[in-house]
Parts: sequence; structure tokens; C-alpha cells
Amino acid sequence: MAGSTFGNIFRITTWGESHGKGLGVVIDGCPAGIELNEEDIQMYLDRRKPGQSRFTTQRKEGDVARIMSGVFEGKTTGTPISIMVMNEDQHSADYSEIANYYRPGHADFTFDEKYGFRDYRGGGRSSGRETIGRVAAGAVAMKLLEKIGISVDAYSKNIGGIEIDYNNFDISERDNNPFAVPDASSVDKIEKYATEVMANRDSMGGIIECVAKGLPVGLGEPVFDKLDACLAKAIMSIGAVKGFEIGEGFNVANLTGLTNNDGFSMKDGTIVKNSNKSGGVLGGMSDGGDLVFRAAIKPTPSISAKQNTVNKQGEDIEISIKGRHDPMIVPRAVVVVECMTACVLADLLLENMTSKIDNVCKVYER
Amino acid sequence: MAGSTFGNIFRITTWGESHGKGLGVVIDGCPAGIELNEEDIQMYLDRRKPGQSRFTTQRKEGDVARIMSGVFEGKTTGTPISIMVMNEDQHSADYSEIANYYRPGHADFTFDEKYGFRDYRGGGRSSGRETIGRVAAGAVAMKLLEKIGISVDAYSKNIGGIEIDYNNFDISERDNNPFAVPDASSVDKIEKYATEVMANRDSMGGIIECVAKGLPVGLGEPVFDKLDACLAKAIMSIGAVKGFEIGEGFNVANLTGLTNNDGFSMKDGTIVKNSNKSGGVLGGMSDGGDLVFRAAIKPTPSISAKQNTVNKQGEDIEISIKGRHDPMIVPRAVVVVECMTACVLADLLLENMTSKIDNVCKVYER
Amino acid sequence: MAGSTFGNIFRITTWGESHGKGLGVVIDGCPAGIELNEEDIQMYLDRRKPGQSRFTTQRKEGDVARIMSGVFEGKTTGTPISIMVMNEDQHSADYSEIANYYRPGHADFTFDEKYGFRDYRGGGRSSGRETIGRVAAGAVAMKLLEKIGISVDAYSKNIGGIEIDYNNFDISERDNNPFAVPDASSVDKIEKYATEVMANRDSMGGIIECVAKGLPVGLGEPVFDKLDACLAKAIMSIGAVKGFEIGEGFNVANLTGLTNNDGFSMKDGTIVKNSNKSGGVLGGMSDGGDLVFRAAIKPTPSISAKQNTVNKQGEDIEISIKGRHDPMIVPRAVVVVECMTACVLADLLLENMTSKIDNVCKVYER
Amino acid sequence: MAGSTFGNIFRITTWGESHGKGLGVVIDGCPAGIELNEEDIQMYLDRRKPGQSRFTTQRKEGDVARIMSGVFEGKTTGTPISIMVMNEDQHSADYSEIANYYRPGHADFTFDEKYGFRDYRGGGRSSGRETIGRVAAGAVAMKLLEKIGISVDAYSKNIGGIEIDYNNFDISERDNNPFAVPDASSVDKIEKYATEVMANRDSMGGIIECVAKGLPVGLGEPVFDKLDACLAKAIMSIGAVKGFEIGEGFNVANLTGLTNNDGFSMKDGTIVKNSNKSGGVLGGMSDGGDLVFRAAIKPTPSISAKQNTVNKQGEDIEISIKGRHDPMIVPRAVVVVECMTACVLADLLLENMTSKIDNVCKVYER
Repeated sequence: MAGSTFGNIFRITTWGESHGKGLGVVIDGCPAGIELNEEDIQMYLDRRKPGQSRFTTQRKEGDVARIMSGVFEGKTTGTPISIMVMNEDQHSADYSEIANYYRPGHADFTFDEKYGFRDYRGGGRSSGRETIGRVAAGAVAMKLLEKIGISVDAYSKNIGGIEIDYNNFDISERDNNPFAVPDASSVDKIEKYATEVMANRDSMGGIIECVAKGLPVGLGEPVFDKLDACLAKAIMSIGAVKGFEIGEGFNVANLTGLTNNDGFSMKDGTIVKNSNKSGGVLGGMSDGGDLVFRAAIKPTPSISAKQNTVNKQGEDIEISIKGRHDPMIVPRAVVVVECMTACVLADLLLENMTSKIDNVCKVYER
Repeated sequence: MAGSTFGNIFRITTWGESHGKGLGVVIDGCPAGIELNEEDIQMYLDRRKPGQSRFTTQRKEGDVARIMSGVFEGKTTGTPISIMVMNEDQHSADYSEIANYYRPGHADFTFDEKYGFRDYRGGGRSSGRETIGRVAAGAVAMKLLEKIGISVDAYSKNIGGIEIDYNNFDISERDNNPFAVPDASSVDKIEKYATEVMANRDSMGGIIECVAKGLPVGLGEPVFDKLDACLAKAIMSIGAVKGFEIGEGFNVANLTGLTNNDGFSMKDGTIVKNSNKSGGVLGGMSDGGDLVFRAAIKPTPSISAKQNTVNKQGEDIEISIKGRHDPMIVPRAVVVVECMTACVLADLLLENMTSKIDNVCKVYER
Repeated sequence: MAGSTFGNIFRITTWGESHGKGLGVVIDGCPAGIELNEEDIQMYLDRRKPGQSRFTTQRKEGDVARIMSGVFEGKTTGTPISIMVMNEDQHSADYSEIANYYRPGHADFTFDEKYGFRDYRGGGRSSGRETIGRVAAGAVAMKLLEKIGISVDAYSKNIGGIEIDYNNFDISERDNNPFAVPDASSVDKIEKYATEVMANRDSMGGIIECVAKGLPVGLGEPVFDKLDACLAKAIMSIGAVKGFEIGEGFNVANLTGLTNNDGFSMKDGTIVKNSNKSGGVLGGMSDGGDLVFRAAIKPTPSISAKQNTVNKQGEDIEISIKGRHDPMIVPRAVVVVECMTACVLADLLLENMTSKIDNVCKVYER
Repeated sequence: MAGSTFGNIFRITTWGESHGKGLGVVIDGCPAGIELNEEDIQMYLDRRKPGQSRFTTQRKEGDVARIMSGVFEGKTTGTPISIMVMNEDQHSADYSEIANYYRPGHADFTFDEKYGFRDYRGGGRSSGRETIGRVAAGAVAMKLLEKIGISVDAYSKNIGGIEIDYNNFDISERDNNPFAVPDASSVDKIEKYATEVMANRDSMGGIIECVAKGLPVGLGEPVFDKLDACLAKAIMSIGAVKGFEIGEGFNVANLTGLTNNDGFSMKDGTIVKNSNKSGGVLGGMSDGGDLVFRAAIKPTPSISAKQNTVNKQGEDIEISIKGRHDPMIVPRAVVVVECMTACVLADLLLENMTSKIDNVCKVYER
């Protein structure tokens, strides 16, 4: 099972290495009848594409999505949707050096120990390029969510310790700057700090926040497959993520029942929550509030500053990693967070259809 | 599938409601030949039992574990291990009132919306008693981990905002105080604050930390079933958990590649990490360092202070929840965190056996 | 995973050994709101109960079903339904002898090789009593199927080579004779032959046929989870089943496209099949015809006639198995076939709800 | 989940339609370190390729396998192996007619009912070309089985009612004739009958037998994931298969305990079975005998003889299917049966590694 499959009903299986022939995803369980074309997917892939500013890697990757199956006459057929991106910009020669040592903060050592050897070209399967399949799948999930009126938006909340100012929050600003911050007033501060860090041949971390709106109440299963538990797995499975929190998150340690509980009240004949400390989840099920969670992204481990490590001959050495690396992963990871969220929501949305016999009778008209 | 099953190989399925006939777990996929008796399980269940101090609920729950199957002549047989706890202290009459309104911070509202109605007695399936099955399963997983030399220990790191002092850290202190803090010097401070909060008929949150030692390198699968992703799901699926972080966690936003990467060096002919910022996971696989992660636990939502909510007639009302509730969940959740961790490790340990053909040949002696 | 779980959405997990404390099943994923009580389950368990005639084992097993969770105020709640039968008639002393040798046709040898040892009491997990969990789960699945108008009926088609006469077919006769044959005219012939075989201290096999009516068109998934493939697994997983065939089954070797294809025609404005050679499945999906399949059941391996085998000391020995055994398994297996069929249909019925976006929109009213 | 994934540990996911851009498979969970190249796969694909005699379809399909990921320096890496075949010989124009009616014996009607519409080109997902992914996966599984000394061989046992003569059985003859019969003496008889059937523009069915040798004792899980149950599902999931039986199969109805049980005896210090009526499986686990099972294959539904059906306008019509179709599926299905068997065995072989704690300790050297 080796863990390249995610989801129960809307189930995605990714494959591919950084410098193999290509990367892709197979989506099984997507309902038939959803309009889908390659543009729908390309749109999301373009947001994770490198080379868009001096703050991300200068590698050029075309990353053109091809739908290989599962779509006919512009609509999903209910059969597996296979999406593929061929690798182009392969400089395998560059990687002869790193084949021989273990980069700190990377999976080189753990891969070798687990499997006996590794595809060392560009990180192989542990490369950030592995997220191409996730993003392609998420793009399809988004089409499904749209049908139900669900939206998902992520953005950088913090880069290198610099927090956005929520007073200036404007999601439409997110795509106007290289940092994916929804706050024009933070851009200069981040740019200044990033320039400094890059001068030191070092890298930066940060925090991504994600908000989903329009969820029906009751998505998520009450025990192990809680909405927030499934999201936590999805998000923590993205390389470089070191933390996940929902609603008040780690701040709950400082709160009390009175300050953390969201009261209910009636509004226009509907039950609403008076606040959203919960981040939109109660007992593992969506509660009518916006889904709001955060992910902590570590600084890019590949830096050209000097680091200590060992080589495969068992010698202590000092290295300086060459090549084109992102000084920060946060901006490019924003769309990955969105897409994994979409996959989780699509899956739980479909699963939830079977929660009560009334729904079963409605579908079969009995 | 409805999400009451967890794990791929060491697979647990829990069942039971707070005030039904009983609760339990079925463990499928536990290897044959492990010594196991009811005492091994009771030991862990006793740690989550209520009524042990004035800082936890005063309900009396015997919670006696019975092994119903899967053990013969003192050893696991390789067939499903069914463990059951009968419910005793049932005061169903107490629950007539809450049947009619939605408690803030509880799953009453989401259950009703998802399923059309709910078992309102003591929270039904969303009760903290649901963790009995998890703990029983974890106790069995622990027996398996012991065979390989893996230990798992959790403790309260923060209660109500009061952090333990790592200078006084002593894990053996953990079971000497009602707060499960491994630091005798914090006990008075927490007790004082807790007494205050309880006087306000309010409740407190906190943070649990968990450390696992002795893991072979390479546990965890590199994409979706990363060790940290599986842990995140396991831990976030425990009711009341609102955040999960590993190693430096959310602090990575403030670090750089240089300050966050763990260098490698040779020590006595073995490769070791010079620090453990990663919390023991690289690329989703155990990296030889201790596994160190934290979970944020929200304040108990059941408080007797006044709160606003709505009833099933659609009226705004003010309530004060009666009954015997924990003013803090943290101390009783410590063993649940340990046990879910043990389940994840047992599962990934078994899965990892198939990672290379050398292992396959070793088992089949070819 | 060890294979004690079956189904994807309507998912059952069985546990228990012949002579352990009890046996049971946990059903996860049953929709909320279905009326269910212990009588609904007992009804099916009683049909597999031994001791009902001289042609089945004379053991007395009460086999009283208790619902431990998942039902509240007479309806399923959407949470796991745990059903348990306590073992009563335990004669562990009887089994000291078989602990030491390998019974031909039984799993004694394979259990020992796989697990290193075995629970030898009454066959342990490989006992026919293992089907108690299957039958209890099937009884619940039947309640779900009823809501959609699906019925499932199995019966003995052949016992010891004696086929029923379809000219006398009357399903209501099935429960009037000890052989579960729906044809009163066959009873005497079978009884005569069975008496003979029993006099030789030998046993008999046979064939069970099962018919399900009222299936919506389209149940089953087109590749690996075809309706007939899932049924084949379900039925072949019942101990003693050695073959499965659907529609014309093995007879297709003698047919041609013209004689095996079912043509379509219009009838009262609906598309109908002109025949049902397919047994109700086309391309793995229900095709509107009755589902009709057969299972081959081997003769009971436990016989008191003399047999050659080996003991655990590695000696060739001759044995004669003592105890109370069924001279034929077929009549008692009929209800097990029905129940496994019901589980498969319930599972695929729920899964099929997500096949098209129209269904999704119908449930979420978008 | 939609059923395009098979297996728990050695897990395959297939995708692709007859006339889409291509077809393929992703294999997750294959152990690292197995030598694998494209030739290993092509060898098996060539055996299912059409156009090899006048008794199979005259379509030309290149079916060239490309390994897209998961292999590095000639060995599997432990990460997903993606294998793809691009479609070439697409005559989409040919299919305009069948878009409008329901071919008897095909999945046209069930696809339309399940999904609301269908990819009608060449049968879309329900085409025999879907088996390309299965065969590619099986070729990889075979490489794994070889390491343990397991072989799998299938052949035609019966075509159009003509049985092979086991007195002339010679597996090496199988690839010397267009019928895949391991008996030179049957070739003429089959050829003569086939020529006749083809002259009637009709088609033929048959029976495939498969034998696997060298299995360790104990493969298969004792309840739902029995070796024979998993095989039954795998084989019945191949389009056109209508029956599965193992060992004596449906003949058990005519046997008794004495004639059907395989006795045990000691031979050179090892326990052996004196016969193999069981077909190599006891209690769902491999028992040391050869695995022997059979599959019934229906006559090709696509025939050019006249048939009655309905069109999408709801009119009764008479059709004659044009195009290049196999007059018999049996010979080309032989390799598909072998390959699905290999996938099942690889999966259960890996799963079985975790059956006892001794194996766990052996791998982790504790």
C-alpha cells in the first residue's frame, strides 16, 4: 500500500520522481458528469510553478497537464481520471555530487535506510515536484466542490516570522505579490527580510492559513475520520509541513471553556454560531462556520551556506548545496494546501451522502 | 466505512457509546505469538479512568477490560483481538434535559444535522468514553513495540497556559500528581490556577507532549502515509485536540535553513544527527532521532457557568450544564495520546517490513 | 489488516473463535435511521443454528444476539453497530486429542504453519461458528435492502449430487425440510442418500443457489469491484465453498455469442432483457435482470470414518474424528450465502450513490 | 473509491479507455531492489496482443509499455511504478453507430444507467484493453514471485466445449498454437470447430486453468481475505469471466468427506498431502499443494450475426456488429488470468510477512 494513495471515495494515487520521465495522478471515484478540461488543471499547476520571481527557484518547469483518461466530450465519465506532466528540465548531471552525501533536512538518509538505495536525482520521489499530482487532483476536486457551492482559499499568513496585518486583509492581493500574502502592506517588509536572508545564502519558513466556505453541516466522520483529523493528515503529508492547527489551535491552552466555546443562536430561523473559535469543526464534523486552519512550513533545507554532514564513505564533511532552490517554500505551497484541502472535502462530501437512510432513499427514489 | 477503523495492517475498529451497553475495540492484524493478558490492558485503562482526583470528573467508572477473542494460552493468535468494557455507571435520567438543546463546544448540533437524530445520553458516540477502545488497542500495540525496543511516553507540557520547567523534568514524577506533569515544581502553580477556574465553574485547556524512543530508521511511507502525517491524523482524531506539531513545529516560521536543519555526523561508526529540530522525522520517515510532538487540547466544553445556546424548538436559551465533568481534559488525555501513537507506530512498523526485497527474502528464507 | 474486515462503505469486521468467550461483528457505515432490533438479527441466526434435525450437528448452541451499540430508540444511529453472541456450549476437554494432529480437509496444518501455533478448540477461528458475525451483519444489511425493495433468497440446489426439480420449485418449501430445498419432491431422495452416507460415517457436499431481486440497474463498479467479483469474494470466503458461478457460469464454455447474449427489447416503455443468461450482471454492473449465482460446498471434512494423517510428532497415524459434526454443511450455509450477498449489495448500493454528480446535487439540494 | 484499485500492500490502480490517449497502471507497494526493465513487461503484454492469428481480432495494437516512474538504475525503488501504453490504432469514426444502441452482452446499457452517459468508443473503460494495466502489473508481480521461487502458468483447458486431453499435457506446447492449449492433439479439433463458428459469424467460450507452484504454506488470511476468495475476486473481475472454481470445484457436490479430503503423510521428514483435491488451499491458506483453479470465459459478445436490441430512441431494432472482434476471448485471456493471479500472490505474500512476531523480530533483528 506504501502510501501513495489518499482518500476513500474520491481517491487519488500519485506517482513520479523529480527527474524521472514524468509525474502524475490517477483519480478514482470522481462522480460522472462534471465539466472538466485541461485548462481547469493548468490554472492550478501554474500557481505552483517555479521561476515566477527571484524569491522562488529559477528552474524553468513547463509542467503542462495532460488528461489521459476519464473525460469524454468535456465531462468526467466516472472512470479513473489520469493526469500526467512530462518532465522536461532534467539536469541529471547536476546531481552526481549529492548522490554521495546526506543533505541535512532532506530525506536522503531515510530513503537509503528504508529502501537500501535511492533515486538521488533532484530528491527523486521526495522532491517538491511530487506535489504536481496533488495539485492536479485538487483542481478536479475543486470542480466538484463548486457544484455544491464550496470555496477554498489559502494564503501566506506569516513568512520568516513576519505576520500579515489582518486590518489590510484582501484576498485579491494574494496573487499580486511573490509571497502570496493577502495584505499589500506586508510585502515590503517581507521582501526586505528575504533579501537579507538570501544574501546569507540561507532560507526562511512561515505559516499558511486556509479558509473554506460553504460547507454543508455534518461533513466528517465522528471518530477517526474527523474532518480536522483528515485535514491534518492531508496537510502534514505535504513535505516541509511541521504543524497543523484549526480554529484557536495551540492558543486553546490559554483559553477556558467560556472563552473558547462558540455559543449558538437563532438568526432568520436558522441556527448559527456566535463566534468561530472552533475553526468550523465540532466533534469532527463541519459545524456551519468557516473552516479555518493553519500549517507551519519549515525553511527550505537546501541552502548554499556551509553545513556539516556525512558522506556514504562514513566521513564527516562540510558541504554547500549548489543548484537552483527556493529561498522560501511558503508561496508555492499555498496552492498545494488548497488542493489537498479540496481533496479531503470532496472525499468527505461523497462519504457523507451515505450517512442517513433518507439520503439513500432520495437517490434511489424509494 | 464511516471512520471507526484506523490503521492499515495493525487495524483497529472501535465501537460503543457513553451510555450504551458497553464499548470496545477489535484489533485485526496483530502478529501471533505476543504475550498478552487482561492486566496489560487494564494498566492503561486505569490511567484514563475518571474519579482519581478533584481535578477530573467524579464519575465512577469501573472500566474493566475483557479480552473476548484472539488470545490463547496467554499469547496472541494472529486472529482479531476483541476487547470489551461493559458500561456500569449509567444515569440516563440525567440526560433528559440536554436531549433538547445544543451544548456549545459539543457535537450535539453536528450529530443531529448529519444523522437526523442523536443518542444524547452522555454524548453518545462523541463522549470521551469513546477513547476506551483506543486505549485498549494502544495497550496491545505497546506489547508489540516492546518486542522491538520502542517506548512511548506522553505528559502534560502546559495546563491552562502554565508551562512545565524542563530544568526539573523527571518523567517518573508524571504519575505522582493529578496533572500528569513530569515536573514537581509546576504542580502547585497549576493546582492554584485550576482551583480558581473551577470556582468560576469554568474549565482549562493545555498541551500534551509525547516522546517515542528506539524507532528503527525508515518507519513511515514517503508520500501520504508519512509518519508525521499518520500521527497528526491519529492525534487530531482524539476529541478536543485542536493542533498538532512535530519538532520545532510552528516555531519553524521563525527559523532559517541554518537554524532548523539537523546536521549529520559520524559517532562510533554510526550516522547520527547533531540536533533534533525535526522531531525525529525526515521526509516522512523516522530519522534516528527521538520522535517528539505536541498536541493542543481545548478546555472542556461542559461547564456549569452560564452559556447561550438554542433548543430544538428554535428558541434562544441560557443554560448551565449539570453533571460531573472534568475541569480539564489534559491529564486524562495523556494516555490516549500515548496509545494512539503506539497504534500508528505498530502499523508503520509492520508496513515497513515489506519495503525491500531483502526483507521479503529474509522472512521466506530465499 | 489480516482480513477480518469486509466491505468499503457498509464495512463489517468479525471476531471470535469457536470456543473463546464469544463471537461478534462490528458494522461501520450503516446509514442512520433504519429500524433495527435484536429480533431482526435473531431470525437469521436461528436459521444457521445447529441441532435442528438429525442431518445437522447435534450440538446445542443458543446463539443469542445482543446489540451492544449503534442503535438508539429502535433505530440505527449511523455509528458502529456491535453485535455479540456469547459462547455457551463449550466442551474444551473434547479437543485435547485434535490439538495433536492435523485433521484432513481442515485448517489445522495451515494455521500452525502461518502463525506458529493455533487455538485448537473446535477449530478456533476457522470454525463454522465464525459465520455468526457474517449472519448478524447480513441481517442488518437486509434491513437496508428492504428500504430500497431488494430481496435475497438462497436455497439448496443440489445435495450430494441430487439436483432439485425446477418444475416443483417453491421457495416457501425451503423452510419445511431439513435440507433447505425449495422442492418437496426432492426431500425423500436426499434423505435416503444422506442416511446411507451417514451410516458410512461419511459426509456430503452440494450446491447453493441464490437469487436477488429488485436491484437498481448499475450496482457494482466496472473494473475490480464488479458486482460479480465482489460476490465471488464474499461467497468464496465462506469456509467450505470451492466454486462460484453466475448466470450460465461454467456452461458458457458450451455456448456461443448467439446463445449466450441476452437481447434487449422495449416493454411498456422500459428497456428489458429478453433472457437472463448473464445472471443479472453486465460489465460488472447489475443489468436489471434477477441476480442468480451458485456456490459449490464441499463435504464436511470432519467425519468419523478412518482417515490417514500425521501428528505433531511427525508420525503417520490413522484417525477417526469424534464429536458432533454436520453430515452436510449445505442447509446451514444457505443463510450464510444470503447474508454475505446482502452485505455486498448494501455496500455497492451505498457506493453507487456517488457515481454521478446529479446524485450528489440531489442529496445536497444544489 | 470506484474500484479501479486492487490489493492491499502490492496495490495496483489501473486507468484508461479503449480509445482515449492511453492506458496504464500505477503499482504502489512493490518492494525496492527488484531488477525490472521494460522488456520484462513487454513480454507479458505481447502475449495478450491481438492480431496474432485469424482466431483473434485483426486489429493491430502496438501496445508498447513505458515505465514512467519507480525504477532507477534497473531496480525498483519502492516508490510507485507507473507503466503506460499509448493508444495508437484509434478508429473513433467506426463507433458512431454503436453510440446509439445497446449491444447485447456488453456494458453499454449498464454504463449509461450508472453514469448518465458513456464513452462509447470501443467500449471505453469496459473494453478488453482495460486488461493492459492488469498485465503490466502482473509482469512486475511475477518478478517478485520469482525471487521466492513461485511460478504461475495458465492455459486453455476447454474451448467451445472441447476439452484438452491431459494425457498429452505439455505446457511448452501452449505458445505453439493460437488457442493457448497445452496439448497439441486438441489443436485441430478446436480449429475445425472455430472455423465453423466463425462462418456463422458467431463466437465461442471456454475454460482457463491456472496452476501456481512453489507457494510457502500459509499464504492467505483466514476469514474474508482467504487466498481462494481473493483469487476469485481477481479472476471474476476480468471481463467475460462467469465462474471460478478451485481444486475439485463444482464437482464437490458429487464427492464425500472420504473422497474429497486430502490426507497428510510424512515424506522425507516433511508433512505432505497425499492428494490435492483442495487445489492447494485449506481454510483459505496455501496448504503446500499446487494451487489449481479454473475460470469460465463467456463467448465474445460482439458478433456480426444478427441480434435484437433497442436504441436510445427506445425502438426495437436488429443489429449486426461490425468491426474486428475476437471470435474467442479465451487464448488472449490466459495471460490476464496469470497476471491477476500473480498480483494476488504478491499481495498475500507481503501481507503474510506480518503474521507472527518471529518474522517481525527477524526483519528488525531484535
